[in-house]
Amino acid sequence: MTDTRPRPKRATIFDVAAEAKVSRGTVSRVLNGEPYVSESSRAAIEAAIRKVGYVRNTAARNLATQSSGAIALIVHEPHSVFVDDPNIGNILLGTNAALSDADYQLVSLVIDTERDSERVTGYLGGGFVDGAIIVSAREGDPISKAIADLHLPAVMVGRPDNQPQLPWIGIDNRGAARQIVERLIGTGRRRVGMIAAGLDRDSGRDRLAGFRDALGDDLDPALVSEQELYSFTAGVTGMTELLDRAPDIDGVFCASDAVAAGALDALRSAGRRVPEQVGVVGFDDSAWALRCQPLLSTVHQPAGVLGARAAELVLEQIRSGGRGSRAGVMLDTHVVWRDSA
Amino acid sequence: MTDTRPRPKRATIFDVAAEAKVSRGTVSRVLNGEPYVSESSRAAIEAAIRKVGYVRNTAARNLATQSSGAIALIVHEPHSVFVDDPNIGNILLGTNAALSDADYQLVSLVIDTERDSERVTGYLGGGFVDGAIIVSAREGDPISKAIADLHLPAVMVGRPDNQPQLPWIGIDNRGAARQIVERLIGTGRRRVGMIAAGLDRDSGRDRLAGFRDALGDDLDPALVSEQELYSFTAGVTGMTELLDRAPDIDGVFCASDAVAAGALDALRSAGRRVPEQVGVVGFDDSAWALRCQPLLSTVHQPAGVLGARAAELVLEQIRSGGRGSRAGVMLDTHVVWRDSA
Repeated sequence: MTDTRPRPKRATIFDVAAEAKVSRGTVSRVLNGEPYVSESSRAAIEAAIRKVGYVRNTAARNLATQSSGAIALIVHEPHSVFVDDPNIGNILLGTNAALSDADYQLVSLVIDTERDSERVTGYLGGGFVDGAIIVSAREGDPISKAIADLHLPAVMVGRPDNQPQLPWIGIDNRGAARQIVERLIGTGRRRVGMIAAGLDRDSGRDRLAGFRDALGDDLDPALVSEQELYSFTAGVTGMTELLDRAPDIDGVFCASDAVAAGALDALRSAGRRVPEQVGVVGFDDSAWALRCQPLLSTVHQPAGVLGARAAELVLEQIRSGGRGSRAGVMLDTHVVWRDSA
Repeated sequence: MTDTRPRPKRATIFDVAAEAKVSRGTVSRVLNGEPYVSESSRAAIEAAIRKVGYVRNTAARNLATQSSGAIALIVHEPHSVFVDDPNIGNILLGTNAALSDADYQLVSLVIDTERDSERVTGYLGGGFVDGAIIVSAREGDPISKAIADLHLPAVMVGRPDNQPQLPWIGIDNRGAARQIVERLIGTGRRRVGMIAAGLDRDSGRDRLAGFRDALGDDLDPALVSEQELYSFTAGVTGMTELLDRAPDIDGVFCASDAVAAGALDALRSAGRRVPEQVGVVGFDDSAWALRCQPLLSTVHQPAGVLGARAAELVLEQIRSGGRGSRAGVMLDTHVVWRDSA
């Protein structure tokens, strides 16, 4: 079934020149709208362009302005993003819609390995994008460092501890965590624990800090399980660990909705009733929250708006030649109380 | 908190020329490794490059070869992908790993609106990418048409009814659907229905055709609910509809695992026990399958391998100047029997 017919290659400016029987330079002058080209050459070139199916190379045309019309969205940990965190998908869609309005092309780049990290750095320095949005960077992340070195207009989603020179947009993870944990305690829980995750980034650390703020002196360190990723599996493992360490646990704050879904699963397997015996709360208000049984009480964060505002900020950096506001922007969150606590 | 200090712009070749006190043309000759540049100018230019922090524009350097070193992955319906279909995330990760091995940069482009579609077409024709992989295209999809017109090396994931000129890689959706439905019938079910979805693309139509193959003359059209997307919500709606139309239904084939998860939810709400009263099977063997209660019986498709092989096929098209094999490639699937039927 192999088709061995030659397939046409993409036409180049050389093909146009050969077809029109003029020099490459003459074709280039016509393409650039320059004067001093004879009408007959111009007509021949225009006919040749149609005949060979030449499509103008925008990457070339934009060299003079050092502009590509594209913005990178850099996503770390694609596994957890695509499988466990629909929230980041919503950030991406918000970014895409805002850039689309401004006629910019969003290109998403995933960083899955060390090698990806090096290659993406080269790509970012190669003139293919005019700016970048970095989502869920970790402490000491080499991409954020490279972007700063390149002076590429960029915005971080999340508060960057390690890259204060980049503007950022985020939410008050610490305050929001404190608020939902206080509400959980307010339902009469006496042994409240937390499944913490993502402690190598600001959101994870801040959610744990907010939990500590709410508990104060009542904090029992045995009631904190530290997991690596914001994932369903982390929730299963963390809840199993907490039930083992503290069988009398009656409330648990999960670092994300995916973690909470896993915790609910482990509680069901252990025969604990939610919310009667154990109250469970999450964080994100992502699609997970409405799929949990019982429906999850959680913190709503405006993921789509975060993405859209990040897009606006990076465009502002580009338009101002890097002189736009570099202050951090914090968006509001609120607690959504459903049935799991 | 606004920082109003001027922030350095990205250095251009003009900055290098000004710093080195030479013409732009001389800088260009040094960058291109051309001879006939005095040693003193060369040394001054190299010092200037370091001083102003100039980074070579790869988009420019690659113009001569019409090569960007990047491949686009075009994702239609990002909402359903990011929220409901971790399978497509796995295709993306497989593609990324294979392209990374070949030192190509994967850039993902989402098509969410008509406007996205037009802008992406322009981007693909603009010399920013050397090839494209199209995931989950619909019937008459304008992007696939545009790619064919541009003669851009491209591969489709899924069997393309409408674009036979593009090579593709996929699975035998029809045969696999028939196989799992026959197995479901084999558990003694007498009233087997289907929640169909994605009927505007080959995968959705083929899964429905396989269901029909398995049922043959026993097919009751009332037992097929047609939904738009492969989503959790489609499963809830479809199952509710089927229970209403045929309260005696005792088996259901869902067009994807996300659809099955929604169906299980609706069955639980309706007080039906799974698998005792109703057997449920899905399709994909994505992360959803292991999160369902009970664990989902489903068709395993090798999503990561699909992505990796799509990457290899597009690289083959690029290297051969479009003369690579254009035959379709079909990967194996198998039924994974768990607890839901």
